[in-house]
Amino acid sequence: MIASEVRALFAVAARPEVVSLAGGMPNIAALPLETVSAVMADLVTQQGVVALQYGSAQGVESLRESICEVMALEGVVGSSDDVVVTSGSQQALDLVAKIFLDPGDTVVTEAPTYVTAINTFAAYQARITHVPMDDNGVIPEALAETFARLSAEGHPAKLFYTVPTFQNPAGVTLSTTRRPEVLEACRRAGVLVLEDNPYGLLRYDGEPVRALRADAERAHDVIYLGSFSKTFAAGLRVGWALATTAVKDKLVLAAESAILSQSPFPQLAVDRYLRTQPWSDQIKVFREIYRERRDAMLDALTEYMPPGVTWTTPAGGFFVWATLSEGLDAKAMLPRATSARVAYVPGTGFYADDSGQANMRLSFCYPPPERIREGVRRLGDVITQ
Amino acid sequence: MIASEVRALFAVAARPEVVSLAGGMPNIAALPLETVSAVMADLVTQQGVVALQYGSAQGVESLRESICEVMALEGVVGSSDDVVVTSGSQQALDLVAKIFLDPGDTVVTEAPTYVTAINTFAAYQARITHVPMDDNGVIPEALAETFARLSAEGHPAKLFYTVPTFQNPAGVTLSTTRRPEVLEACRRAGVLVLEDNPYGLLRYDGEPVRALRADAERAHDVIYLGSFSKTFAAGLRVGWALATTAVKDKLVLAAESAILSQSPFPQLAVDRYLRTQPWSDQIKVFREIYRERRDAMLDALTEYMPPGVTWTTPAGGFFVWATLSEGLDAKAMLPRATSARVAYVPGTGFYADDSGQANMRLSFCYPPPERIREGVRRLGDVITQ
Repeated sequence: MIASEVRALFAVAARPEVVSLAGGMPNIAALPLETVSAVMADLVTQQGVVALQYGSAQGVESLRESICEVMALEGVVGSSDDVVVTSGSQQALDLVAKIFLDPGDTVVTEAPTYVTAINTFAAYQARITHVPMDDNGVIPEALAETFARLSAEGHPAKLFYTVPTFQNPAGVTLSTTRRPEVLEACRRAGVLVLEDNPYGLLRYDGEPVRALRADAERAHDVIYLGSFSKTFAAGLRVGWALATTAVKDKLVLAAESAILSQSPFPQLAVDRYLRTQPWSDQIKVFREIYRERRDAMLDALTEYMPPGVTWTTPAGGFFVWATLSEGLDAKAMLPRATSARVAYVPGTGFYADDSGQANMRLSFCYPPPERIREGVRRLGDVITQ
Repeated sequence: MIASEVRALFAVAARPEVVSLAGGMPNIAALPLETVSAVMADLVTQQGVVALQYGSAQGVESLRESICEVMALEGVVGSSDDVVVTSGSQQALDLVAKIFLDPGDTVVTEAPTYVTAINTFAAYQARITHVPMDDNGVIPEALAETFARLSAEGHPAKLFYTVPTFQNPAGVTLSTTRRPEVLEACRRAGVLVLEDNPYGLLRYDGEPVRALRADAERAHDVIYLGSFSKTFAAGLRVGWALATTAVKDKLVLAAESAILSQSPFPQLAVDRYLRTQPWSDQIKVFREIYRERRDAMLDALTEYMPPGVTWTTPAGGFFVWATLSEGLDAKAMLPRATSARVAYVPGTGFYADDSGQANMRLSFCYPPPERIREGVRRLGDVITQ
């Protein structure tokens, strides 16, 4: 989808009568706003001359230490010296692309993949090649074959971009058996892994999995991206990258050139929140809310989808990926859906090629359960028509 | 200076016994922190679900309207639709470079110029050509000649980057007579003007001048960059670009790719501050403080500098630009200066070529007047030795 189409879709989706299964907006209303307000107020009165002053491009040290504690929950061990705080993990993605990609370089991603990652890689004139997934995530054999084919064609892959846990948009998670196989395929082909993990702590059932970075043989095999957008507040735009010291140095230089210094205020606000509030309990609150919404969506899909429609069953995150019967076109169907007051993102946006026509991404993060049921009911009618 | 040298310098400059005339940090302590704290607290309790949620890449509309009122103080008339809010004006600079510059393109700047602008243009592999200034800013004839020479050499200038008012690092201001001449030279040569104006409202004597953008014949001749870093709070990183609708659209797309959405929280905080607090009176407070510091520096320079040293007399902003006697090397002198507990930025950092060896930038924004006097006294001793 081009930018104007995306904007038109989200303008429609924002209308109150429309059930939006389109956006990936977290449920900020579940935050204890009075508490957050007090955290912000204290920050200014107690640390205002630091919080409102220029900061460093690498980010506030005490926050980088807190980030290491957060990453440890998924098995990632890293030094705060090797963390770069970024304006959301999107900026980390952009800086990694800026550092590593020359025009014509090849990036391999899952099929489908995060739409903005496609746009970012395209902005640096990279070629994007997709590798298929199934319900256990990307298929290691297909990944290895793709690397071999690309090398044989003279376009060896430089980067493998992956959202291994509760993937956006597919909702699937790379299985624990496959994780070492994926790392091994990348290591053998000399391909750097860029692991994007914004949803990892939002698991609704099953056992937690360790991040790819946690079990990488060598620290320089995986650059890890994290974010507080889904576990605390998207609007503060605080994300991070964990890399080797050498790559971290380059990221800091690129960040200085892009934005001079990271805004200290939101960083100190996040750090103060993490250090003074029961943030882990708040994540449990989010989990409960999103689990109920996911269940509402899966139940409604079972109830209202016509035969021939299939969908993924996410164990966490924000998204279900639906596949319509062959020959149906989710993008062409969108105007009828919005007329019926339900919105989704057509699948084609999540591919760099022409795939995904029969797919749609259905988000369950934002509307309450009864609205999700109503939205899926309306969607069922549109598909059946 | 390379990044490691700059970091080493600022590490030394941050030691309490050292008088730092190096950094350009605004005097945040002069803000009414209790008031700002209350503004932040109210923002979260009253608009938390918006402030902590994802926002747009163009920025919050009501802030863009406030920005138009701020720009009007310097004669700039623009629509809020054509404003893009950025993470400090540094991000605007980066996005403009990303959109307009291909490797090998030529950017013309004042000599000396803002160090981070040099780094940004260099990051996009642009060639940088300097044009000399005198006490009335850049010399229009020299600018026109440079454009002609570059065209003749097959490297026509694409962009003229200028800080016309209270320039960083030179502290000089482009005179009102020269402003139309500079615009005309650029228009004739088909060169886009990139006007960076972070200090314009911090005038300590003389009459306010109109921004270049205010008197550009055609809106597409000048992209205007502004910032709240010096008039409110640097740590919130809120700046902006005003461009034509077509360029604005490109900036928004580039911003989406770089950071997805601008952080709504600091934008709404700035907007709320502008709409509920006497921000114009606060700028007067800043002016009084900085005027006293500038006067302290100029008096101390007169008192303590040995013969042969000259310096500029800024009517506003943060910086004095000093020129040592021929043959002296300000960079080589720096270790002796820091041993004598005074720091400055050597002039070479503000040039893309090897110029500036006999120069130093002296900031008067951060230390109180008596510290500035003491710092200049120490510096005089070091130069005399």
